[in-house]
Amino acid sequence: MHFAARLNAAIARTGSIACVGLDPRKASLPAPIRDAVRGDQPDAWAAAYTQFCTEIIDVVADLVPCVKPQAAFFEQLGPAGMIGLGEVIRHASAAGLMVIVDGKRNDIGSTATAYADAYLGSGTNGSPASPWGGDALTVSPYLGRDSLEPFVEVCTARRAGIYVLVKTSNPGGGFLQDQQSDGKPIYRSVADLVTELNRPLLDQRGYGPVGAVVGATYPEQLAELRQAMPHSMLLVPGFGAQGGSADDVRPARDAAGFGAVVNSSRQIIFAHSRAEFAERLGDARWQDAVREATLQMNQQLA
Amino acid sequence: MHFAARLNAAIARTGSIACVGLDPRKASLPAPIRDAVRGDQPDAWAAAYTQFCTEIIDVVADLVPCVKPQAAFFEQLGPAGMIGLGEVIRHASAAGLMVIVDGKRNDIGSTATAYADAYLGSGTNGSPASPWGGDALTVSPYLGRDSLEPFVEVCTARRAGIYVLVKTSNPGGGFLQDQQSDGKPIYRSVADLVTELNRPLLDQRGYGPVGAVVGATYPEQLAELRQAMPHSMLLVPGFGAQGGSADDVRPARDAAGFGAVVNSSRQIIFAHSRAEFAERLGDARWQDAVREATLQMNQQLA
Repeated sequence: MHFAARLNAAIARTGSIACVGLDPRKASLPAPIRDAVRGDQPDAWAAAYTQFCTEIIDVVADLVPCVKPQAAFFEQLGPAGMIGLGEVIRHASAAGLMVIVDGKRNDIGSTATAYADAYLGSGTNGSPASPWGGDALTVSPYLGRDSLEPFVEVCTARRAGIYVLVKTSNPGGGFLQDQQSDGKPIYRSVADLVTELNRPLLDQRGYGPVGAVVGATYPEQLAELRQAMPHSMLLVPGFGAQGGSADDVRPARDAAGFGAVVNSSRQIIFAHSRAEFAERLGDARWQDAVREATLQMNQQLA
Repeated sequence: MHFAARLNAAIARTGSIACVGLDPRKASLPAPIRDAVRGDQPDAWAAAYTQFCTEIIDVVADLVPCVKPQAAFFEQLGPAGMIGLGEVIRHASAAGLMVIVDGKRNDIGSTATAYADAYLGSGTNGSPASPWGGDALTVSPYLGRDSLEPFVEVCTARRAGIYVLVKTSNPGGGFLQDQQSDGKPIYRSVADLVTELNRPLLDQRGYGPVGAVVGATYPEQLAELRQAMPHSMLLVPGFGAQGGSADDVRPARDAAGFGAVVNSSRQIIFAHSRAEFAERLGDARWQDAVREATLQMNQQLA
């Protein structure tokens, strides 16, 4: 099965549209993981990040359809971190989770193909495996159509997906994305391109490999963009810590309840620091805090 | 010295504004490098890429101010490639070359900082070294101002630079970049933001750490954007193989001949395949072809 069909099947299987963002940060790791790091070498931290993320995966694998590792935090550690990123992705795939690599890569022609080759293709379902083994990758559209097409080609060959940045959740996102041109905002032009790229590649449920990132912090635009991109799986950041509520993300799903996942990172993976879990579970039982926070998010989104 | 000052000093020292793009590709490697690869494992190819790029660096180090490794081609090989990228960058730094990492990274807040931490900072001139050790990094502006500011902060701390994608050389670049909004094209809005970010951070020659990518394939816009971003080092792709001529890139320099580098990748690094060098030098003397092609480019740009 292709990416969108597999992700929708995972949503059906788990009854959840939550995506757990794997954003490891040194300062926020629970004490049992952080205190075990000897010295300050990248290898030691990469091992800590890998252990932290694989334990989270084990805790949430039956609860959610997918995880989203943030490449930047692994890259921050250098090559040792990038090796860890691969281990985390393979662990998630083996646990039955879909993996969206958040790398926001972008380039043109054969350079874009090189990025796609690196990250797209989990090796499951008969598709060739890529070095990092993701099911999908986030990509940036500033370079235009010829920067997206090479990714779409690799998606087709490897049954993978991309999520194009369309309307992001950050305060500064409007600077470019909301500018009006020809009577519509830039984000809408990107959305229309996404729909055009998808159209020849739809699965039985009507979804193609070209997804879109649309932030939870702009619920009106989320509803508009759900309409404008009927064939796109949506990835909705900005839930929880960034201010988006369950009501805000409701428009992301299609009528049957599919077609979108809502990401939460800090509120899940660092749940041990949240007031409601800190005292009762704390750092020692951080995995239980992750599980409870995930169940809570599922309930909020249900 | 800060990034712009160091790059302008390197331009003065070499009398060249050429930047050699390090874009290794399996199929294009000269036979002596390609034939030495045993098997098809990423490690073997990563070693070949590293050898190829370090030999190029040795050949061009006295002729040009900088090199621009393309991260995507190293990432395509997986973690082994990323280790190779670090080796190539350190070799270039040791040879006295400035290194612009072409990674087109982008994200917001602490995630953007993580990318900056990974790539910015060569450890020369008293600045802390980063895992990959670049002097500058290309970044994409779609996420807006709060996606650029974290990079600028790290630039300041590490005497490094960024090159923001403003007007790219590819045919599809106009899709977003040329859209008119508020009476000016989007690329001009990005240019104005670049200038604003630079203004408090200027060196004695009037340059700041926030450079810009402006393609050689649009000479009129290049002249316009040189004016609009008087404090930005420009990185001009699209020369040679993509069609930009020496006349086209002339507007990129400031009145004193500084403030810009012009990139060429394939025409330099794969010069052994060009008709004018293939017969006389061929694969066996590919390093001589690289040197002659670089001298030729310097002459064209002089």
